[in-house]
Formats: sequence, C-alpha cells, structure tokens
Amino acid sequence: MRAAIARQGQLVCEEIGELEPGPGQVLVKTLCCGICGSDLHALHHLDDMADYARRGGSPFALDPKKDVVFGHEFCAEVLDYAPGAEKRLKPGTRVVTVPVLMEAAGMAPLGYSNTYPGGFAERMLLSDMLLLPVPNGLSDRQAAMTEPFAVGAHAVAKAAIDTDSAALVVGCGPVGLAVIAGLKARGYGPVAAADFSPARRAMAERMGADIVVDPAVVSPHTKWSDMGVPTTGAEQMMSRMMGKEPKRAIVFECVGSPGVLQSLIEASPPGSQIIVAGVCMEVDKIEPFMAITKQLDFRFVFGYAPEEFAATLNDIAEGRIDVAPVITDAVGLEGVAGAFKALGDPETQVKIVVEPWRA
Amino acid sequence: MRAAIARQGQLVCEEIGELEPGPGQVLVKTLCCGICGSDLHALHHLDDMADYARRGGSPFALDPKKDVVFGHEFCAEVLDYAPGAEKRLKPGTRVVTVPVLMEAAGMAPLGYSNTYPGGFAERMLLSDMLLLPVPNGLSDRQAAMTEPFAVGAHAVAKAAIDTDSAALVVGCGPVGLAVIAGLKARGYGPVAAADFSPARRAMAERMGADIVVDPAVVSPHTKWSDMGVPTTGAEQMMSRMMGKEPKRAIVFECVGSPGVLQSLIEASPPGSQIIVAGVCMEVDKIEPFMAITKQLDFRFVFGYAPEEFAATLNDIAEGRIDVAPVITDAVGLEGVAGAFKALGDPETQVKIVVEPWRA
Repeated sequence: MRAAIARQGQLVCEEIGELEPGPGQVLVKTLCCGICGSDLHALHHLDDMADYARRGGSPFALDPKKDVVFGHEFCAEVLDYAPGAEKRLKPGTRVVTVPVLMEAAGMAPLGYSNTYPGGFAERMLLSDMLLLPVPNGLSDRQAAMTEPFAVGAHAVAKAAIDTDSAALVVGCGPVGLAVIAGLKARGYGPVAAADFSPARRAMAERMGADIVVDPAVVSPHTKWSDMGVPTTGAEQMMSRMMGKEPKRAIVFECVGSPGVLQSLIEASPPGSQIIVAGVCMEVDKIEPFMAITKQLDFRFVFGYAPEEFAATLNDIAEGRIDVAPVITDAVGLEGVAGAFKALGDPETQVKIVVEPWRA
Repeated sequence: MRAAIARQGQLVCEEIGELEPGPGQVLVKTLCCGICGSDLHALHHLDDMADYARRGGSPFALDPKKDVVFGHEFCAEVLDYAPGAEKRLKPGTRVVTVPVLMEAAGMAPLGYSNTYPGGFAERMLLSDMLLLPVPNGLSDRQAAMTEPFAVGAHAVAKAAIDTDSAALVVGCGPVGLAVIAGLKARGYGPVAAADFSPARRAMAERMGADIVVDPAVVSPHTKWSDMGVPTTGAEQMMSRMMGKEPKRAIVFECVGSPGVLQSLIEASPPGSQIIVAGVCMEVDKIEPFMAITKQLDFRFVFGYAPEEFAATLNDIAEGRIDVAPVITDAVGLEGVAGAFKALGDPETQVKIVVEPWRA
C-alpha cells in the first residue's frame, strides 16, 4: 500500500508493507486524516521530540532516524479483523478513535510510531475496543476533526471556568479555534480571541468568538474590562469588599512560541488562570517573580481523555460544534508534502486533510 | 525614634521622625519582628523589586533610591490612637496584623514603603481595623511568626491537596518549613522534604516532615513510590483502569532560584501540581513541551488572605503549629546588619528576630 513517509526531514510517497491485524486489532481503510501542527514540527524536529519523550519518561519511544508515517486525526472504514475476532463492528462501518494502538507489548501512538503507520497511509491498524462508529451521517471530513477538536475540549475541561468567567484565546490556529468552539459548546463566554491574521480572526468569529482582536493594533488584554474582569489587584479587592467575587480571567495560550508565556505573565490580570495548550518545543524564558506576585495559575494541557474524545464526536454529531469551516483544503498522498508547505500561510489555510484513496 | 534603615544597599541605624497616627491608625511599639528572605533580597535588589511592581501593575510604588525601613513579620503593643478614635483595643494590648497600612490615599505595604517604617523601627503605625490581639499568652516572638507561617498556610490552601495526596517540599528555608507546618496542621501527608543543609533537614523533621532527603545524595523524586504515588503515565493509567484515581503528587517549590522549576518539570510525576512559593527574582528558563506532555499544573502563590493570617495565628495559639524552633537568634536594631549576613548560613540560622527595644 502507499503512504506519505517522513524520512530525514522529507516527505516521500512510497509503497510500504501490508498490515496484518493481531488480536484485538482491526484493519481499516483511511478515509480522511487531518494534518496537525505537531506533524509540521515533527517533520523537522523529530529528534527533539524523541529526546523530550525519553527525558520526560514517556513510554512512547521513537527512533527519529527511522521512517514514520504521520497522521493521528483520522476517520477510517473497517475492512477486516484478525482470524477468530468477534467482529463487533461490521466491515464497511466508518469509525474514529483516539490514535493509540494496543499491542501485546503495550501501546503505540498512531502517527508517531516507527512500527505502525498513521493516517497518511492507505490503511491502518486500529484497536477494536477503542473504535467509535461515526454517528448521524457525519462526513468523513467532519468525523476526522474529532481529534483536533477534542484537544480544545480537553483544554476547556482543564480550565477553572464557570459561567461567570471571561476567556481570552491567544492564537487562532487549529488549537485556538478548537478551544473557542469548545468554550461556546459548553456555553461559556464572553470569549475574546487574538490573532495577527485577518483570515484566522474571521475563522475565530465563525467558531463563536464574541470579540476578535488584532494584537498588532491593540493588546487583547485591553478587552478584559469590556468583559467585566477587573484587571488590577485593587479593583479585585474592591469587588470582594463589596461582597462580589470578581469575574476571573481565563487565558488559553494556543500559540506555542517562545516569549508568549512571559507576555501573558506581564499582561494578564492578577489571579488569571493560563491554560497552556500551544506546544512550544523550544526553551522559554519567564520571570517567576511577576507570576508569583500576580498569583497566576499555569495549567499545561495535552491531548484528551478517551471520554473527552467521545464527547467531542457527539458535540460535532449534534451540531454543537461546526467543524466544517476549518477544513480549507484536501489532498491525496502525493499532495502531503505540498500541504505541509501550504500550512505555513495562515491567510490561506487552517486545516488540510489528506485523503489517501485519492489518485 | 531609632530604626534600621535600608539605604543604597546598606543597613544603617539612625534616628527617624516620630509618627502621628491618622484616622483609623494606631501608634504601636514594635516588640519583635522577623527578618524575611525577601528583606535579604530587597536590600541589594530594591530597584528590581520596584521595577517588577511597576511592570506588574502593582499599586505599591517604591522609590529604590529613597530610605526604606524593612520588617513585615511583627508583634507590637498598642500605644496611642489619633484624637477622637474609638480605641477598640486598650493601650498595652499586644497585636499582630497583616503588614498593610490603610491611609486616605489607599494602602501602603508595611516593610516596603518609603513613607511608613516597618518593624525594624521602635514604633510603627498600624491600621486599627486590621489588628488582631495576641491570644492565649503567646510570646511576642511566637506571635511575630504568624506572618511567615501564614505564607505557608496560603501555599497549602492554594494546593489541590486532599488526604489522598502526597507532598514534597523542595527547600526547607522559612517558607518551606512554614509549608511543612501548614500541611501537618491540616492533617495532610505523607510529607517529604528536601534540603542540602543537615540543620534545615533536622528542622523539617521538627516541623513534622515524614521523610527528609538530602538532594546531594538522592533525588527527592525517588520517594514518590514510597509515598504511594505512581510516577509514570503508564502506572497512573493502570491505576485508573483498576478503578482507583492515582494518588497525586503535590510539589511545593520553596527555593526560589533559577533552574529549580525546570528540574521539577523534568523530575515530577505526570499530572503533578507544583505550588511555586519560592520567590525567584531572576529570569528563569523552562521547557514548556515537557510541562505540556506531563500536564503539569503550576500555581504561583504569594502572601495570604487576611483570614488565612488570622487562622494561622489561631493555629499557633492552639498548638497546632509550633513556631518556636525556627527562631534561632534575636538582635537589637544595631544587630540587624549582622543578622542579614548571618542568615546567609543555613547551618546556623533559620529565622532571626529583631527586638528594637533592646539596647
């Protein structure tokens, strides 16, 4: 079968070996698979990712010198089971799943494995027990967005947010857009969103942002007062003395570049909670003293729980989250390398999906 | 009256002007005042502190070129009120208070003000409405420890800790010791504590630490398993699959030096909460990616609420916290400069108190 293979920083389209499902595994046809920002980074910094995983004690070992087939945001169709399997879902059933494959030795991360291909291949192996059938006639593309939008749902779930909080989403790439959608699906708001790109700001509005800000023109932190959040310790103290707990600022960092954390430490209101969902893979500098005196709460978040993934699929199926606008292009396997380049321009692309069955 | 004045990085003992209480203010005699680690830092880095306060939007403006009388951990005796005051507490009453003075224009931080002297002066002005009488015949020195131990109580209160968590206190200076005492006063544990100094480790045990570790010999993170905390994501997942929420690691960073945060990011179990109570006034470097993949929660804490201060006084009065061991020396005003130097040696000193009435 064919796959787009990440090899030494290049993407090459080649034949790879066919897959044989083991016990509990299902052979599937990849229908659609989104390209994630982490894939873009991993193509050129796979060695850093492997190093981080090793130092952080991750059970997922990856050899950056060996081939990897990326792709962890997929919708697929059940083809076949191992001999003797129960065949819970009939061949032809369309499914999504958290991108993890159970095997005898443990688990493998689909999309970042030297052993098992991710969704940028014609076929994959998935774990039967983790499969969720695609409900309500969702399209393949919509279903494939479950994974990236689950990331947003998880970030929202980790926030100490309630209906009397205000949120600011910094960075409106796929993660930021998923956070906005997750906030609105749960009824939270107001939600302000900031991005330098006009196209991304327009997309933020489509996802439900109440206020969008071009940080080149004005700091998004000037909007807290409009959202009812007191921005100084004195104002907060006054509110408490009047018997009212001040509205809390919840900031979602969805950029993942060095310097953003410190800019949030400096500009966020005292007592803010900062959910760090942007994946910064470089060393970053912060000034702890300012974070201390402002009593900031930094919650670093990653991935999602299986139940958050399932709930996100349900949100999409029930129309609480409209994922369609973020899909800006679709390519076949030969187009993956070009799509990786095209995703560098926020004005034209948000999410490109790979459809490996395309010519 | 006499005071130990911080002036251009030096401590000098001089006469300063007498104080006149304004409306709502009380003139007091300083009985005892602890020297805080922040005072040691402020003596040489007052300009940095003023800069941080300004950039962080603090209402407390300080001119680092002008004189400051430090001292914010005090016990005092009521001397006199402004004319016409209600005189809620009789002259002679011994009191403690959060180190803040209300004035017509707002609030001044006692101990870090160009206008009002802190506790390294013979007399101070305090706010009547904030005064708490010293209960149960506590000594002046015990009562003066309310402030530093309230810092520990606040750090504990900000932690997502319960009786099924385990705690590690990194750094057993006054802040770390107060955290240990605060944890044990609330019945939390087990508590491990780490410090390079044998004397500090012994003090940690007196405060109630269940395990003490010399980090020069062994990483304190080797003790999580002994305390029942699974240290890998795989172990945590296994625990959840067995229907048991894994015991959570709560780390209290009480060192405040660059590099400690990153060391905790690398070594703490996934999902740990890290309460940052150590006051690092330098730029620090972290690797966000590792914090993200481990989903760490960093809560930066500072000071305490007035009710936490009052509760700490009560904890000391009721014997739930024994503060006496941490007081390792007492000096008069002429001895303040020497005491600042002596506090550089963790083997001989923990907390030195200033008794300005001493000859």
